[in-house]
Amino acid sequence: MTDSTTPRVLVLSGEPPPGLEPLDGRAELRLVTEDRLAAELPAADALLVWEFATDALPAAWPRAGGPRWVHTASAGVDRLMFPALVDSDTVLTNARGVFEQPIAEYVAGQILALAKDFAGTYARQRDHVWQHRVTERVGGTRAVVVGGGPIGRATARTLGALGLRVALVGRTARADDPEVGRVHGFAELDALLPEADWVVSAAPLTEQTRDMFDARAFGLMKRGARFLNVGRGPLVVEADLLEALRAGQLGGAALDVFREEPLPADSPLWDAPGLLVSPHMAADTTTWLDDLAAVFVDNFGRWRAGRPLRNVVDKKLGYIPYAAPADGVSR
Amino acid sequence: MTDSTTPRVLVLSGEPPPGLEPLDGRAELRLVTEDRLAAELPAADALLVWEFATDALPAAWPRAGGPRWVHTASAGVDRLMFPALVDSDTVLTNARGVFEQPIAEYVAGQILALAKDFAGTYARQRDHVWQHRVTERVGGTRAVVVGGGPIGRATARTLGALGLRVALVGRTARADDPEVGRVHGFAELDALLPEADWVVSAAPLTEQTRDMFDARAFGLMKRGARFLNVGRGPLVVEADLLEALRAGQLGGAALDVFREEPLPADSPLWDAPGLLVSPHMAADTTTWLDDLAAVFVDNFGRWRAGRPLRNVVDKKLGYIPYAAPADGVSR
Repeated sequence: MTDSTTPRVLVLSGEPPPGLEPLDGRAELRLVTEDRLAAELPAADALLVWEFATDALPAAWPRAGGPRWVHTASAGVDRLMFPALVDSDTVLTNARGVFEQPIAEYVAGQILALAKDFAGTYARQRDHVWQHRVTERVGGTRAVVVGGGPIGRATARTLGALGLRVALVGRTARADDPEVGRVHGFAELDALLPEADWVVSAAPLTEQTRDMFDARAFGLMKRGARFLNVGRGPLVVEADLLEALRAGQLGGAALDVFREEPLPADSPLWDAPGLLVSPHMAADTTTWLDDLAAVFVDNFGRWRAGRPLRNVVDKKLGYIPYAAPADGVSR
Repeated sequence: MTDSTTPRVLVLSGEPPPGLEPLDGRAELRLVTEDRLAAELPAADALLVWEFATDALPAAWPRAGGPRWVHTASAGVDRLMFPALVDSDTVLTNARGVFEQPIAEYVAGQILALAKDFAGTYARQRDHVWQHRVTERVGGTRAVVVGGGPIGRATARTLGALGLRVALVGRTARADDPEVGRVHGFAELDALLPEADWVVSAAPLTEQTRDMFDARAFGLMKRGARFLNVGRGPLVVEADLLEALRAGQLGGAALDVFREEPLPADSPLWDAPGLLVSPHMAADTTTWLDDLAAVFVDNFGRWRAGRPLRNVVDKKLGYIPYAAPADGVSR
């Protein structure tokens, strides 16, 4: 492909995404559904994975090599970490910048909701029951946020602004991080868990993070501590979480992501004591589709101009290694 | 009373309050209920209004003059603003310092809950319904906080820390407030209301603030704006709020205080569209009773030593005029 040709961009989506109008005349956009992916991929110059909750890519990936650029409208890229893509020269980019602040707000809101028992208050309102209770302050409590990427960082900053004392844990320890001061390494997590009132999982799903929140981790936490997951479902061993809630080892929890989504109607998680269930919506704001499209449109312009793409995923790591956002990327 | 005598301190409470042990041997504490107040007050040197939701004081106040010092375990003093006390030499102090940060956290939590529709999410959880929705960011939205005292200020600071753009409105406009930069005067409120996404009532109840949130005020707000009240119930004309919610002029609301408390079971407010009802508990944390007692114990020591009391209410104004908290009082 040269500048004199119009690139063919496959868009994995049943419906035309909003916000791609700036590409009119600059790209040949072809909408494709999962069943047509294998047939269309060989001729594609780029692939926009708009409907990102797909497992169809590995089987559809061309043996002769896929498109030169794949962009996913998600923060997590775990579904794209199959060998044919990882080992290829295909550049993979993601939607970093769209989800951080909404997720941080969701976490702050659910922590306040757990501390103030909003769920109990709303349930009493439904029954017209006026029942005063005392609740907790969040200021001065301790939170451990696991995930050194933009989502974990935004969450740590937001909780810190609310007066919580926050320890951020990432893959790589840093003593003098330009943004959050100190980042603890995963090796330090065991020592931090017993001190935490709140443990927030905001990590990407990698082989290192899969199942990291299990009976052992919950057992290390202070009795009555609360746990939140906004990363990926498989970070958590759900049966162990359920047991920790039932036993009172955990005083409450909030999950926005699950191992199986949608969460089956007969899952015991729906009725677990003190557990708040939300349907993987923490990141999704009224403007999120336009915001997602804007990231792709911006990167398309860079791609066509031969400039460096934003949000390039390190395919060996499974995420974008953190760099101080001097260029505004992670905002 | 001199230092050689032990002062008689009436405590208006059915049960002994916790946290008053430091007064053992230093004061003669007499527990009194409303029905015995008139009989006991003439001989009292001081009165601790522990059960502060009382309207019994005016009728029980001695014609010959009440105790020299009255302390109320509340932030609002509206129930104590009866002429015999206001016009007397009795010093009135309150519980400033205990409630600010918990209320600020409550407001932040309910704003996040409204923006993210937590009530809708929790209701769906009860029915095991997985239904993704898009919700709102609070960062970048605009809030007007009405109430220039410590509660309004703590609320403004907390919302600002969450990324909201906040205008604080108080009785007295200040261009260069040492704590929050600028305080708008009540006269500016009409101009601020149409711009606000969130309007938070955190003012004391005075003749100036009674009924200030009425059909006219709600009509000035942006269509779909949200309203919160953590001040006092009579700041709001509840029938007008109900109508504004039903008409969609307001997109939601959260009330922690009501004109009649407990809110009667047949009040239409319980089921008003988009309204979150909580039972006057925003300020009340697991440590609030001890915190309230500590304020009284500290002031008792000052009183006995002849030093200036903290939290002296200006009885003509009905609240403590704001001063920069150089002495840590408002923390």
